[in-house]
Amino acid sequence: MKNKIRLDQYDQSHYSRGRSGMVVLLWWFVQGTLFRFSLHPMYSWRNMLLRLFGASIGRGVKVRPTARFTYPWKVAIGDHSWIGDHVELYSLDRIEIGEHCVISQQSYICTGTHNIRDPRFGLVTRPVRIGDGAWVASGAFVYPGVTIGPMAVVAARSTVIRNVPANEVHAGSPAQYLQDRFAPVNPSEPRKEVLV
Amino acid sequence: MKNKIRLDQYDQSHYSRGRSGMVVLLWWFVQGTLFRFSLHPMYSWRNMLLRLFGASIGRGVKVRPTARFTYPWKVAIGDHSWIGDHVELYSLDRIEIGEHCVISQQSYICTGTHNIRDPRFGLVTRPVRIGDGAWVASGAFVYPGVTIGPMAVVAARSTVIRNVPANEVHAGSPAQYLQDRFAPVNPSEPRKEVLV
Amino acid sequence: MKNKIRLDQYDQSHYSRGRSGMVVLLWWFVQGTLFRFSLHPMYSWRNMLLRLFGASIGRGVKVRPTARFTYPWKVAIGDHSWIGDHVELYSLDRIEIGEHCVISQQSYICTGTHNIRDPRFGLVTRPVRIGDGAWVASGAFVYPGVTIGPMAVVAARSTVIRNVPANEVHAGSPAQYLQDRFAPVNPSEPRKEVLV
Repeated sequence: MKNKIRLDQYDQSHYSRGRSGMVVLLWWFVQGTLFRFSLHPMYSWRNMLLRLFGASIGRGVKVRPTARFTYPWKVAIGDHSWIGDHVELYSLDRIEIGEHCVISQQSYICTGTHNIRDPRFGLVTRPVRIGDGAWVASGAFVYPGVTIGPMAVVAARSTVIRNVPANEVHAGSPAQYLQDRFAPVNPSEPRKEVLV
Repeated sequence: MKNKIRLDQYDQSHYSRGRSGMVVLLWWFVQGTLFRFSLHPMYSWRNMLLRLFGASIGRGVKVRPTARFTYPWKVAIGDHSWIGDHVELYSLDRIEIGEHCVISQQSYICTGTHNIRDPRFGLVTRPVRIGDGAWVASGAFVYPGVTIGPMAVVAARSTVIRNVPANEVHAGSPAQYLQDRFAPVNPSEPRKEVLV
Repeated sequence: MKNKIRLDQYDQSHYSRGRSGMVVLLWWFVQGTLFRFSLHPMYSWRNMLLRLFGASIGRGVKVRPTARFTYPWKVAIGDHSWIGDHVELYSLDRIEIGEHCVISQQSYICTGTHNIRDPRFGLVTRPVRIGDGAWVASGAFVYPGVTIGPMAVVAARSTVIRNVPANEVHAGSPAQYLQDRFAPVNPSEPRKEVLV
């Protein structure tokens, strides 16, 4: 079968990383050293480094030292939100995280994909938005273009390929509606599994 | 929409890590240095370090250097069990692993979650128990409170949200019953997929 | 319940790693130093190291510094293919990747499993083959023995337990047929989700 895909013709010159290659390399160096090897409780120090590289970081934000930001200048995080260990914010496009959000350890927020019909495998980017009070639990993967509504919950290890409406809990691969976050508990009904 | 979640009021003072903050930091330092950079075959050395920090570790246990233990004093591992590379034992609560168990590389055993109805996002912990002879295959994720029975098998990359009875093979996200581990093979039936 | 599994009797003496233990250790050392800490754009340097340890690496191949190869002498990669960050090629058996393939970040190609009926947990290995022009998207897991056909696509975070025919897009856990990669778009039909 003749292969139609030509990666030697790959070209993402239409895409802008938003900073010069020098700044990108400098950030990766800083992230791998000053950021990565800062002590656990030095949240202000890491917030300062992120702001220095153009991220919008609210008050009281807690980012763990092993979290990774591809391009911090494309990331905004609201007040009192937490970014856990080994989280990857793959911010080829904008990642906007509201206030009082938790992105738990090992989650992956992905804003880049490729046009699979294109022989040259063109890069496609789509922003990800996460509303106030939402929780992306441990090990979840969020697809490019997804919006997670305010106070929504994504269960641990879910794969989120569609928008999650406000106040809903979604789980699975692909993630699907499981229950409302704040629904009154009906004691006569067996309780759904809510561990996330 | 008004956000109900208030992470600035988060409080886990009801929770006990089981050791002082000084011991926790010391363990993380030891884990990131003496443990992490020990040579592959130095199993006895790593077992000694784990025991020094209160883990119960049986005879012949093999823990790889990139495995991580959040609080080793909350972990028990029986004789001749193996803990693979990049396994995370997120032991906010007890993790009890029997004898002759395999926890394969990149698996995540999770004992912590949060009360999603609570505006203050209260920490909830539940122990995980894994019976003798069980196998948690590569990249699996085990939810808080789950018990995996003796000789049960969890297929690679599964998400285990419910208990797995003894001798059963479960697979998928969420993991579901696939087959019995030791069932006699019926040659007239097409063999189910058992690669795990 | 009496445990049938006896890991203290585990024996993989029938298995050959293909090189002496000394070469294996040397590779792991090189991978953890010269390979791992090379600068991002030094693709030729990493290709040279892989070839030095017996890998077959085509022209224009781009392997990121955080990719891991268990035994490079069991790996072949065709011209102009890419291996992303934190990809693991767990090459206990052969891994054959064609030309113009992309194996995106955090994917795991697994060639080893165990006989779950065997009380001694015998090691079983099966090769993985990936055809020209195929794309294994971010965070996917490919089971031992799987063949991914030319130009096939595996969506991000899928678990691939069966062969994927040429030109097909598979997604989910376990991965299932989603659509044809190059099917003509019918504008009267709602477009399926193709973000991968």
